[in-house]
Amino acid sequence: MAGLIISLGISGCASPPKERSPIFQYSVINALLEGVYDSDVTVEELSRHGNFGIGTFDGLDGEMILLDGNFYQIRGDGNAHRGPDTTKTPFAVVTFFQGTTVSYPQSSLDFQGLTKYMDGLIPTKNIFYAVRIDGLFKHVKTRSVFKQQKPYPRLVKALKNQPEFTLNNIRGTLVGFWSPAYVGGVNVPGYHLHFITKDRSAGGHVLGLQTESVNIRIEGVNEFRMILPRNKSFYGSDLTGEKRNELDKVEKSREPAVH
Amino acid sequence: MAGLIISLGISGCASPPKERSPIFQYSVINALLEGVYDSDVTVEELSRHGNFGIGTFDGLDGEMILLDGNFYQIRGDGNAHRGPDTTKTPFAVVTFFQGTTVSYPQSSLDFQGLTKYMDGLIPTKNIFYAVRIDGLFKHVKTRSVFKQQKPYPRLVKALKNQPEFTLNNIRGTLVGFWSPAYVGGVNVPGYHLHFITKDRSAGGHVLGLQTESVNIRIEGVNEFRMILPRNKSFYGSDLTGEKRNELDKVEKSREPAVH
Repeated sequence: MAGLIISLGISGCASPPKERSPIFQYSVINALLEGVYDSDVTVEELSRHGNFGIGTFDGLDGEMILLDGNFYQIRGDGNAHRGPDTTKTPFAVVTFFQGTTVSYPQSSLDFQGLTKYMDGLIPTKNIFYAVRIDGLFKHVKTRSVFKQQKPYPRLVKALKNQPEFTLNNIRGTLVGFWSPAYVGGVNVPGYHLHFITKDRSAGGHVLGLQTESVNIRIEGVNEFRMILPRNKSFYGSDLTGEKRNELDKVEKSREPAVH
Repeated sequence: MAGLIISLGISGCASPPKERSPIFQYSVINALLEGVYDSDVTVEELSRHGNFGIGTFDGLDGEMILLDGNFYQIRGDGNAHRGPDTTKTPFAVVTFFQGTTVSYPQSSLDFQGLTKYMDGLIPTKNIFYAVRIDGLFKHVKTRSVFKQQKPYPRLVKALKNQPEFTLNNIRGTLVGFWSPAYVGGVNVPGYHLHFITKDRSAGGHVLGLQTESVNIRIEGVNEFRMILPRNKSFYGSDLTGEKRNELDKVEKSREPAVH
């Protein structure tokens, strides 16, 4: 795949630097799948652990993007809002982004093509990566989610009628992470990306896309920190069992994937 | 199950305290299963993250116990040694132990009975626990492992002829952790305990036991930190796939379990 790679590490790949910010995570993905949407931590507390990341909000009230230190809440209508610092989150993954490898793909890529291209930038699939992609997209297909009411439904049910949006000829930023396969149960294995428009007005969890002209920044991260909730709904949930099939379902579109 | 419980937390259970040391882990269990026995960190570096824990040594050279800040290496002959601070580890889990709940079981328990008893002390299976059990045992069955030569065999092969030992009427300490089910791939779900005699002369990974008179100390831990290796054998291994069956095998005795 043709592309220009400017590596700030060694050997043309995203080399993990010696000292950098860990991936910081609050709660685990299995808890979110079980409907644990109650939270103990505010976005203000989360911001002590990163200026870049993704997640959701108390009661599953939309998709979270943390970009350049600013939190955006993309509610069920697909619009992005800035909430107060006291807004809480039941699941989030953040880091202080550095972007040690920069690459400019020379051709238009669909979602699958983009992930394959990024596979070529990373030296190993056995550590974490933070990924930021800025530029112009022919289209980005996103989904968001409406705030849920108690008793909370499981995630697969809450997303059954997820609102989906297609943004055409749109400038914006993809924000997210690669997580290694062995953290299934804790986080989403593989790439997990959210999108926000350049004017920070809309976005969501990415279901499909076609790039026009983008630059990719990736950094490898060898340290992981996780804080587990201290509330009854987390403590009382059944977090055992293999949930990979459900996870695949909630990460995807209601319809066949749009590339 | 009859027992005297002195809880230093609330409500008779091991309550996670507000501020305490995280569980700190180096590497992941899936890498150990794949034969990644090369290591970057010394026990001196590990000791910055805890005074209590378990693991193994460079080249799979025995079972590790970290107790009261002292590292013990239990080699293939079942004997415990103190190694130099420069000894390296490819996998270890440590914390600064506090022991917020103390309990004295009033009857003799086998391994399964002991784990069930501890289940009754923990308020949720969804966080981590550090466990220390001191006292007199009718017997403890342990295994250790001989140092491996390169090219390293996978763990299940390295342990195929594991040396096993039975220590009778023995005083000593069990050291280990409970890890929640969702960390499979990262750590060993459930209880994982190593043993060392009171005179610190022998021990190993615990396969079976019968208590005589012991006291149990448990503490819940809501924070987890993990550092991933920065070496070629870690980066180059296939850490995908479900390895739970293999993990069950390497955690157990060659013969049917002795309780």
